[in-house]
Amino acid sequence: NVFNFLEPYNAADVADLMEVLSYKERRDLIRLLGEKLDPEVLSEIEGSAQDDLYDQLSNEQIADAVTDMEIDDAVYVIEELDEEDRSEVLSALPHDDREAIKESLSYPEDSAGRMMQKDLVALPEFWSVGQAIDLLRDQSSDLPEDFYDVFVVSPIHHPVGKVSLAKIMRARRSTKIQSIMEQDPPTVNVMADQEEVAYRFTKYHLISAAVTDENNRLVGMITVDDVVDVIEEEAEEDILALAGVGEESMGDSVFSISKDRFKWLFVNLLTAILASLVIGLYEQTIEKLVALAVLMPIVASMGGNAATQTMTVTVRALATKEISPANASRSVWKEFKVAMINGIFLSLISGGVAVLWFGNPLLGSVFAAAMIFNLMCAGLCGILIPLSIDKLGQDPAIASSVFVTTITDVIGFFAFLGLATVVLPPL
Amino acid sequence: NVFNFLEPYNAADVADLMEVLSYKERRDLIRLLGEKLDPEVLSEIEGSAQDDLYDQLSNEQIADAVTDMEIDDAVYVIEELDEEDRSEVLSALPHDDREAIKESLSYPEDSAGRMMQKDLVALPEFWSVGQAIDLLRDQSSDLPEDFYDVFVVSPIHHPVGKVSLAKIMRARRSTKIQSIMEQDPPTVNVMADQEEVAYRFTKYHLISAAVTDENNRLVGMITVDDVVDVIEEEAEEDILALAGVGEESMGDSVFSISKDRFKWLFVNLLTAILASLVIGLYEQTIEKLVALAVLMPIVASMGGNAATQTMTVTVRALATKEISPANASRSVWKEFKVAMINGIFLSLISGGVAVLWFGNPLLGSVFAAAMIFNLMCAGLCGILIPLSIDKLGQDPAIASSVFVTTITDVIGFFAFLGLATVVLPPL
Ligand SMILES: [Mg+2]
Ligand SMILES: [Mg+2]
Ligand SMILES: [Mg+2]
Ligand SMILES: [Mg+2]
Ligand SMILES: [Mg+2]
Ligand SMILES: [Mg+2]
Ligand SMILES: [Mg+2]
Ligand SMILES: [Mg+2]
Ligand SMILES: [Mg+2]
Ligand SMILES: [Mg+2]
Ligand SMILES: [Mg+2]
Ligand SMILES: [Mg+2]
Ligand SMILES: [Mg+2]
Repeated sequence: NVFNFLEPYNAADVADLMEVLSYKERRDLIRLLGEKLDPEVLSEIEGSAQDDLYDQLSNEQIADAVTDMEIDDAVYVIEELDEEDRSEVLSALPHDDREAIKESLSYPEDSAGRMMQKDLVALPEFWSVGQAIDLLRDQSSDLPEDFYDVFVVSPIHHPVGKVSLAKIMRARRSTKIQSIMEQDPPTVNVMADQEEVAYRFTKYHLISAAVTDENNRLVGMITVDDVVDVIEEEAEEDILALAGVGEESMGDSVFSISKDRFKWLFVNLLTAILASLVIGLYEQTIEKLVALAVLMPIVASMGGNAATQTMTVTVRALATKEISPANASRSVWKEFKVAMINGIFLSLISGGVAVLWFGNPLLGSVFAAAMIFNLMCAGLCGILIPLSIDKLGQDPAIASSVFVTTITDVIGFFAFLGLATVVLPPL
Repeated sequence: NVFNFLEPYNAADVADLMEVLSYKERRDLIRLLGEKLDPEVLSEIEGSAQDDLYDQLSNEQIADAVTDMEIDDAVYVIEELDEEDRSEVLSALPHDDREAIKESLSYPEDSAGRMMQKDLVALPEFWSVGQAIDLLRDQSSDLPEDFYDVFVVSPIHHPVGKVSLAKIMRARRSTKIQSIMEQDPPTVNVMADQEEVAYRFTKYHLISAAVTDENNRLVGMITVDDVVDVIEEEAEEDILALAGVGEESMGDSVFSISKDRFKWLFVNLLTAILASLVIGLYEQTIEKLVALAVLMPIVASMGGNAATQTMTVTVRALATKEISPANASRSVWKEFKVAMINGIFLSLISGGVAVLWFGNPLLGSVFAAAMIFNLMCAGLCGILIPLSIDKLGQDPAIASSVFVTTITDVIGFFAFLGLATVVLPPL
């Protein structure tokens, strides 16, 4: 009944449905489907629904589903199981699959080695198109479920070329593979991070790429459909990291979401207190001129926003490799000019507003001066901090925000209140 | 010389090189390459380098390059030209290419119609694999440069199936196409936004998809390599929009970057002034207890950060369709609980810090109360505002930040200073 309803849907749709259901509804659906659950749903499902689904299935059912998968999808499932279930499922698999999965798991998380599949087609370069076609036709049961390119290898199994199926299809049987292949196509090292994999696929418009080991031997293949997921994942990672959220998915529990976000909020509390300590230094000045307390959050807020703009642009430019050592200094200089232009205009407007509001031209000048100073610092910090963090080999998306907002807050309060203490005569 | 140096590089590498060069260096490089410039660089180059390159090439040279491109790449180039150059280039093209480009340009920007290419392979369902292979071999000059699937159409040209080249390759010549095709594969409407196209490709792991018109007739094909660019573009759009930056690229001029960022900073100035007006209402309270001025930025900052976390998660969940009407209210309720948990812990810590710092338990209590109140409001605004903006058909990534930070600032100052005015006895 439920099965008949879900039958026409793709496994991806069923997985999405499970993800939006509540815990209880999901459990009922899995129970009702029973043995009729499409095994592909196991490699489609994400987030906490994934854990729930695997928990509810028997290890036997999981092993059955995994046997039919490409290694990369099998690894996606196996990775998620706890120690005990994992070894039970692994031991229920055919020997070859088990070894291939173990090899894949031996590579670091988020590496090309984890993403790749082992099934691929590799031919020697002296073959003809006809031989290639005959091989594809004869060995059809050993071939990957779907593939788009055939790799050409040297006698020591180095990938020296690549031919798309479309090209093979169009060529005459007598044509030498060598003469229609793309020479030295972009490859991916088995230890490369998935970010690097995504970068190469995007840049060179790849549909599939050969994965090579440290001796440049062909060990696997990555296909673009899996890279698409990585691109989304990596962009998501940056967006969330910039906002102070870790790897969080819709289905996570209230407790784990709270804990994850608490970390960042706690760090922010500490840095906010640091900025307030600066204000504390000037209590006497504020007591004499409360207008300072009214205006000071504006200086800090504008600095924070300007810095966030520059920081975000820089973090993305680093991620897409648009900033390189070759043009970093030019970019810093450019940000300096942008900060100066906007600093001048915004400080003039702010100063004018302060004069109109409090009727105090000297206060207005101090406000404007602090504003332009903080906006210039914001622009420079916004680019220099992510660049430095990146140079230190850390992820600029994660750590930049804290530093940048702390610095602009502290500098903003120091500049405004400090200048006011020195300059304003009635104090 | 320069040409020999660049020869082994891919067009994508040459385009990247041009993008990081300065204006003058780029101009020199283009001049030195002259006629030897790889025409593919024209469809690879992005940002302001793209404009510079097209400006420097003659319309004849552009037309020559465009003639060899698939329609989607040709449109990428043509779109960028001004009126006059565009019609000159178009009139230099063969009739068929010109009409195809004009048709593509008749679809909205960022629509599937603009992304698709017209060259594709479509077969009737009653054909055999052998007939298909013969057709591919005989018509090889009319086929797209690269393709991965063959579409199966009904007599009135509706796409009813899809077969990958790998499947055709593996099947026996006598096999009916109908028996190995994927029935009713996911298609894309020609008017669909590129975001929807990217969503379908990601969800269903597509390598290529049929594009259909309003009568469900097959009119084109979109391939995954172009969708990869869209995914990056859309994620980038959201990251930058959340930080108050528009479509900005590394190569843009200082003036255009400044102008674009100024808009957001100016809006932020207005909202910061609005928040300061709230502080202004309590000048007398602050005068009597300056500690309030020291602590108030902490309340606002914590609210802003908590709201940004929730807002960012919500904006991404909307973009990836993880939030839907079916689970929106559950998500709101979840955010409420997360905000309550973190609100309780953070307000206890904050209150403790304030008591230790100023030795005033009542001040500490007011601070803690304002903190928890603002964090709860932040959590709710962080999800409700993007949800509402999305419901109104606007892009939640663009408008949410302003509303959310203004509201948490205003509520933070109101709650803290207002409560202090009412509760603190020495005032
Ligand atoms: Mg899904
Ligand atoms: Mg992973
Ligand atoms: Mg795969
Ligand atoms: Mg997959
Ligand atoms: Mg990563
Ligand atoms: Mg990253
Ligand atoms: Mg590029
Ligand atoms: Mg053409
Ligand atoms: Mg576009
Ligand atoms: Mg294309
Ligand atoms: Mg393209
Ligand atoms: Mg868009
Ligand atoms: Mg969008």
